[in-house]
Amino acid sequence: MQIKDLGEFGVIDLLAGIVMSQRSGSGNARSFSFNLTVDNGDDTAAWSIGSQSRPGDDRPVNELFTTDTMVEGVHFTLETTPWQDLGWKSLASNISDVASMGGLPSYALVTLGLPSETEVSHLESLYTGMMEISNEYGLAIVGGDMVRSPVVFITVALTGVMQGRPMVRTGARPGDLIAVTGHLGSSGGGLKLMLEGDSSQSDEADFLRDSHRSPRPEVAVGQTLVEAGITTAMDVSDGLGDDLSKLCRASGVSANIFADRLPMHPFLRSRFPDDCVDLALGGGEDYVLLFTGQPAKVNHVISGLPGGAAVVGEILVGEPGKITLVDAEGAETPAGSRGWDHFRPAKD
Amino acid sequence: MQIKDLGEFGVIDLLAGIVMSQRSGSGNARSFSFNLTVDNGDDTAAWSIGSQSRPGDDRPVNELFTTDTMVEGVHFTLETTPWQDLGWKSLASNISDVASMGGLPSYALVTLGLPSETEVSHLESLYTGMMEISNEYGLAIVGGDMVRSPVVFITVALTGVMQGRPMVRTGARPGDLIAVTGHLGSSGGGLKLMLEGDSSQSDEADFLRDSHRSPRPEVAVGQTLVEAGITTAMDVSDGLGDDLSKLCRASGVSANIFADRLPMHPFLRSRFPDDCVDLALGGGEDYVLLFTGQPAKVNHVISGLPGGAAVVGEILVGEPGKITLVDAEGAETPAGSRGWDHFRPAKD
Repeated sequence: MQIKDLGEFGVIDLLAGIVMSQRSGSGNARSFSFNLTVDNGDDTAAWSIGSQSRPGDDRPVNELFTTDTMVEGVHFTLETTPWQDLGWKSLASNISDVASMGGLPSYALVTLGLPSETEVSHLESLYTGMMEISNEYGLAIVGGDMVRSPVVFITVALTGVMQGRPMVRTGARPGDLIAVTGHLGSSGGGLKLMLEGDSSQSDEADFLRDSHRSPRPEVAVGQTLVEAGITTAMDVSDGLGDDLSKLCRASGVSANIFADRLPMHPFLRSRFPDDCVDLALGGGEDYVLLFTGQPAKVNHVISGLPGGAAVVGEILVGEPGKITLVDAEGAETPAGSRGWDHFRPAKD
Repeated sequence: MQIKDLGEFGVIDLLAGIVMSQRSGSGNARSFSFNLTVDNGDDTAAWSIGSQSRPGDDRPVNELFTTDTMVEGVHFTLETTPWQDLGWKSLASNISDVASMGGLPSYALVTLGLPSETEVSHLESLYTGMMEISNEYGLAIVGGDMVRSPVVFITVALTGVMQGRPMVRTGARPGDLIAVTGHLGSSGGGLKLMLEGDSSQSDEADFLRDSHRSPRPEVAVGQTLVEAGITTAMDVSDGLGDDLSKLCRASGVSANIFADRLPMHPFLRSRFPDDCVDLALGGGEDYVLLFTGQPAKVNHVISGLPGGAAVVGEILVGEPGKITLVDAEGAETPAGSRGWDHFRPAKD
C-alpha cells in the first residue's frame, strides 16, 4: 500500500501510533525535571521545565516545539510567492502554531533545500522577509542547515515559551461554541486573484494579495485566550473545514458550522461573491485562531478580545471529525473534506 | 551570482551575517530569563534557562537546539541506505551534534518529504530505525510534519539539555593539541564497499558496512569531556579535514594533522590499504568527537576516557581554517578541501 492510498490522516495516525506505543521514555529530559505536557498530534509539542521566571506567577513555564515545511510546487510557487514573502510565510506558519497554544515564539532554526543554481540575491530577499517577521515577533534565528536539493524547500523548527497551560486540540466538548478570531478566506482570495492573473491595483485587490503574502499570526490573541481560561484552540492554516475537523477528531466530537456567520472581509465578499464561502472554509493560510468553550465562557472571552471574534459553530456528539455546514435555512452539507490532504488529489 | 559560485561557506557566512546583524533581539526568550549562550555557527545553538535541576550542582542548565537534513540522491541513496538505516542515521547525525556540545538529546521533531507513491511499509521501516535509536539514546519524538515532495528528504530538529557550559568551536588556541575519540574512516569504508558492489560476508566487511549503516553518536564521551573541563569540540560528520577546517575558521587558527597518527580500525587498513588515509580524512559520517586543549589537559583527559582518544594534530597560528597534512617524513600537503561542499562538485 502506498501513502496516497492511506491518506494523510491515515499515515499520521500510523506513525504517531508507532512513536507513542514503542517509546520507552524521554529519559534524558525527565532527568532534568522536564515533563512532556503536549505530545504528538497537536499544533506544537510542549514540556514544562519546572522553573518559575516571573514574580508572583506560580504557573509552570512551558516550552513549545513545532516545525513546518514549504515545498516549491506543492505549497507555493515562486510566481505567486516571491522570495521575501516566502521568508515571511515560512516563519509565519510556525509562529501561528505557537500562537495557537498561547505561547511566544523564541528560537528558530531554518533549513534550506536549494538547487545549486539558486541566485544569491534571492536568498538575501528570503532572509529579508525572515528578519522582518522575526524582529516583529521577538524571536531569534539561531542556526539551521543548508542542503542541495532539486526542489526548493524551507523547513523551520521553532521553539516557544509560555507561562501557564498550553491550549490543545483535545478539549472540545458537545455543547461548546466554536469561535474564530479574525476574517476567513482573505488569503485564499488573494491567491485566487494571483492565479487568475489579476494584477490590478485597488484597495480591494491589494488587501487580498497582502493577506496571502504577509499573514499576521495572532500571538497576542493566543496569550489573551490563555489568560481568559480558554483551554482548547488551534490555528486555521489549512482552512476552517479541515482544521475544525482535525480538532474534532482529536476531541472525539463532531461539529456544525453556521455558513451565514463566517467572518469575511467586505473586500472578499465584494470581489468573490460566489466563492467567498468556499474560500472561507477551504482557502487556508488565514492564520487566525479557532477556539472552543462553553457558551457563557466563549461569549465572555469574545467581549474581552480587542479585535473581537465570531461564533461560527457548535460542537456536537457524533462521528469524530465530521463537520457539517448549515446554511441560514437549516440545509446541511458535509464540510470536512474541502481542505488540504497532502497526498491525495485536492478533489478526491 | 549563484550559490554554487559562492560556495557553501560563503553562503553560510552571508546568511549568518544577515541574521546576527539585523536581529533586533530575542525579546520573548529574554522575558523568560532565557539567555542565548551559543549562537549561529556551532554544532547546536544553546540557551541557559536559569533553573537548577540537580541537587548540589549550581552550574546553569543549557538547552541545545539543532537540525540536520538528508536528501535522497544528495546525502543517501536507498540502495546503500535502506529505510530502517535511514531512520537511525537521520537521528544519529543530530544526536551527534548534541553530543559534541556535551549534552543529552531530549525531544525531536521529524519532517518527512515524500512522494505520494512511497510504500507504507517503507515508512514503518523508517520509524523502526528511528525508535531504536530514540530509545537507546533516551530521547522522545514529539511531533513533526509530513509533506509531499518529488524527492525523499528527512529533516530532524532536536533539542538537548545539559548542566554546565556547552563546548564550542571557537575556543581553539595555537599550541593546543587536537584529539579524536574514535576510529576515522570506517563509515566511508563501508560506503565504498557498497558502492563497489561488495556484498561479501566477513567480519571485516560486516564491520565496515555496520559502521556506515548504524553510526553510534558519542553522547557519554561528550559528557565526560565537559566534566573534564574541555571547552572546544565538534563532531566529525563530514570528514576530519573538513570539520577541523570549520573549527579552525571559527577559532581563527590553522592546524596540522599528523597523517601517521590517524586512528583507523585494522579492518579499514586491511581492506583499503591505499585509500584508508583519504577515507579517514574525508570519508565522513564517523560521528566521533574532535576536541582541542592545552597538551597537558588533553593528555590527562584522554587517560580518563574509557575508550581512549588519539592525538591527531596541533593548532597553529595561521590562515584561519587552513589544514595541512604532515606525513611521518615531515612532508606537507593541504588537507582542507577533501570534505563536503554541498553546492560544489566533490572534486572542485
